[in-house]
Amino acid sequence: MEIKIISEKNTILNQFLLEIRDENIQRDSMRFRRNMERIGEIMAYEISKQLQYSEKEVVTSLGIANVIVPNEKPVLATILRAGLPLHQGLLNYFDGCDSSFISAYRKYSKDGTFKIELEYITCPNLDERTLILCDPMLATGSSMVLAYNSLLKNGKPLHTHIVTIIACKDGINYMQKHLFGKNITIWAAAVDEELTVKSYIIPGLGDAGDLAYGMKEHN
Amino acid sequence: MEIKIISEKNTILNQFLLEIRDENIQRDSMRFRRNMERIGEIMAYEISKQLQYSEKEVVTSLGIANVIVPNEKPVLATILRAGLPLHQGLLNYFDGCDSSFISAYRKYSKDGTFKIELEYITCPNLDERTLILCDPMLATGSSMVLAYNSLLKNGKPLHTHIVTIIACKDGINYMQKHLFGKNITIWAAAVDEELTVKSYIIPGLGDAGDLAYGMKEHN
Amino acid sequence: MEIKIISEKNTILNQFLLEIRDENIQRDSMRFRRNMERIGEIMAYEISKQLQYSEKEVVTSLGIANVIVPNEKPVLATILRAGLPLHQGLLNYFDGCDSSFISAYRKYSKDGTFKIELEYITCPNLDERTLILCDPMLATGSSMVLAYNSLLKNGKPLHTHIVTIIACKDGINYMQKHLFGKNITIWAAAVDEELTVKSYIIPGLGDAGDLAYGMKEHN
Amino acid sequence: MEIKIISEKNTILNQFLLEIRDENIQRDSMRFRRNMERIGEIMAYEISKQLQYSEKEVVTSLGIANVIVPNEKPVLATILRAGLPLHQGLLNYFDGCDSSFISAYRKYSKDGTFKIELEYITCPNLDERTLILCDPMLATGSSMVLAYNSLLKNGKPLHTHIVTIIACKDGINYMQKHLFGKNITIWAAAVDEELTVKSYIIPGLGDAGDLAYGMKEHN
Repeated sequence: MEIKIISEKNTILNQFLLEIRDENIQRDSMRFRRNMERIGEIMAYEISKQLQYSEKEVVTSLGIANVIVPNEKPVLATILRAGLPLHQGLLNYFDGCDSSFISAYRKYSKDGTFKIELEYITCPNLDERTLILCDPMLATGSSMVLAYNSLLKNGKPLHTHIVTIIACKDGINYMQKHLFGKNITIWAAAVDEELTVKSYIIPGLGDAGDLAYGMKEHN
Repeated sequence: MEIKIISEKNTILNQFLLEIRDENIQRDSMRFRRNMERIGEIMAYEISKQLQYSEKEVVTSLGIANVIVPNEKPVLATILRAGLPLHQGLLNYFDGCDSSFISAYRKYSKDGTFKIELEYITCPNLDERTLILCDPMLATGSSMVLAYNSLLKNGKPLHTHIVTIIACKDGINYMQKHLFGKNITIWAAAVDEELTVKSYIIPGLGDAGDLAYGMKEHN
Repeated sequence: MEIKIISEKNTILNQFLLEIRDENIQRDSMRFRRNMERIGEIMAYEISKQLQYSEKEVVTSLGIANVIVPNEKPVLATILRAGLPLHQGLLNYFDGCDSSFISAYRKYSKDGTFKIELEYITCPNLDERTLILCDPMLATGSSMVLAYNSLLKNGKPLHTHIVTIIACKDGINYMQKHLFGKNITIWAAAVDEELTVKSYIIPGLGDAGDLAYGMKEHN
Repeated sequence: MEIKIISEKNTILNQFLLEIRDENIQRDSMRFRRNMERIGEIMAYEISKQLQYSEKEVVTSLGIANVIVPNEKPVLATILRAGLPLHQGLLNYFDGCDSSFISAYRKYSKDGTFKIELEYITCPNLDERTLILCDPMLATGSSMVLAYNSLLKNGKPLHTHIVTIIACKDGINYMQKHLFGKNITIWAAAVDEELTVKSYIIPGLGDAGDLAYGMKEHN
């Protein structure tokens, strides 16, 4: 499992990262979603370097040009609801691709511990395809592992790119342990050190779902 | 229950409607999603006329202006996955609002009949709020009624605006019967006459979810 | 010459208007441009009600639908540079239309007075077409009159819709005097009372070009 | 003068390039403009790697993070009208930057030869700043050289990035000859071999301005 940390190279992506972390700037939810979307676009561009390509002839109004384009259209899978703006960014660049939506939730026990449960999944067949699976926060890693394993019921992808904005070390370790030997690349905008007892990443950015879509009631 | 049919007035919305119906133009999924989004924006604008307003003073660099703005931020609820581009359009105009996501699916029996089941729901408290609930196709109306009733567990909205692109008469009748006496306005871009035995609207536009996000496997 | 003031009806447009007027919120130039764009979209929708329509048959995957769509594509003309975000909004809804770009500038004399001069113009033929001409601020009205008259060299439009965000009464009076008898409708988001000696609208919003694109040097 | 050709590395940008070259796909002017915008975004990302950065502390809701962000905001200059969608893409990523707009046109003589003339220019002070100057087609190179030299009246930029979609070899040679010794990097999505006698690039894509904004009349 390869880990790629985008912010190790200095680019304008870091400005978007600063804005989604900043507790004042992140209050503008339109900008917050737009920043996640822009990070998704840049991730799409970086991931596209790993696809297979072949040459195509294209007829222009003045002649014939050769352009080397991707052979395949990846499947863009998203964990709800926080992943939606990141998915929008991926879809902005991979605009004709199939999408998959998954919902997972934290089912709390009375003692405050929780288990990740999967509810909703819609997905095309994944056999021999490139899968891009996104969720903005990779905290414990357990919802990502659960989502990935559930998606495999729809077929075996050639390669999976896991896209996240902020990962933490525990989450990456958990992924490496539970998805050992799989064809997976993890793409993170940044990697933070710690997890709180309630499984929030520190310093992180807070709850990405709430920041994008507002607080929800727990029924 | 009031029914508002937007295409009865000739506007540019009809061009977007033509494009999402046209079996050739709808193959461009980026344009298909964009058309649903544009219809969502226009629906947001039309619905905004029904909100309560009050006057606010705003300090400009050269003086003070009075602007009459909405008192409240509606909650934007969406039925997955087909409703997402329509939700994006609503959110483009109501950009600081809370969102709610709901998934419903058709659970088929061996005899080919189906029942709508609800899986995933995330929602803020709805008491005393304006709720806008969207799904691009109002076919039988049963998933909309189920979604609406499920949302009421999160509180009692003052008024609900149901937004759809293409409704059919059976669906509207079903809604009127099952949601009788509720504070609901239905907004449809167009109303078609018929339903197939498989509950597709005719002439309709096909499967809005597939057109926006690709075919899915049924597990 | 008909005058339509959009903010007389309470809609979400007023929220966008508040945000571009507010001296704090307007500092976010991305949001400022986006608000001008959203106002342009709503103007496009309102203006589209004045176009000529006819019925078209469209083949869906399940049948044939009739949709009543505009007969014509208006020409979208814009005064640089402040008009560009408003033009983007118009183009978002009239997406296949031809565009025209015009630059006018204030040529100052030593005594501080100025004359509007026209520099750059690119335009398709306008004969028998609907022209939509936009500039966010209608202050003295002299650049709008000059732009309109210059555009007539490219043909005689059937009707012209002039789109502005904030107009002032002096500007409207100037237009009515100098464009008397022409087929023109003025669409303003709001109308303010006063002009400063330097021809800024009060309370207005400041300099729309600077807010969208930054200060410029005067050479 | 350094030349960077983005399509030498296989990325999703090549798909956008194919679509703007293809004489069928390019007829959808909304998609054409969107593709130029997406190429502009990717160019912004690539150019951002060349900026100067420093570390900033940012307060999140859960702690303090360090993010390394650009020290400066480049100036985004655009040659009208064809450069506007490319400029929009650059501005999507450098969203708080100042913009500059320049118009140049081909002044034809009776014998069919032409000279590039500059009409309109609006620009902030450029001293000690990074300038990004864009035009989608670099054909003869003469309008780019003229625009660059005109911009220098507003100050001396530290470095200039010239962004183009399709350059041709003659244009690059002309630039190298006339801007020898300047701090300039040229970024092209692709480089084509030939120029027609009328100075169109072959195979190129046709007239980028007409494709984005419609044909114009020559007065």
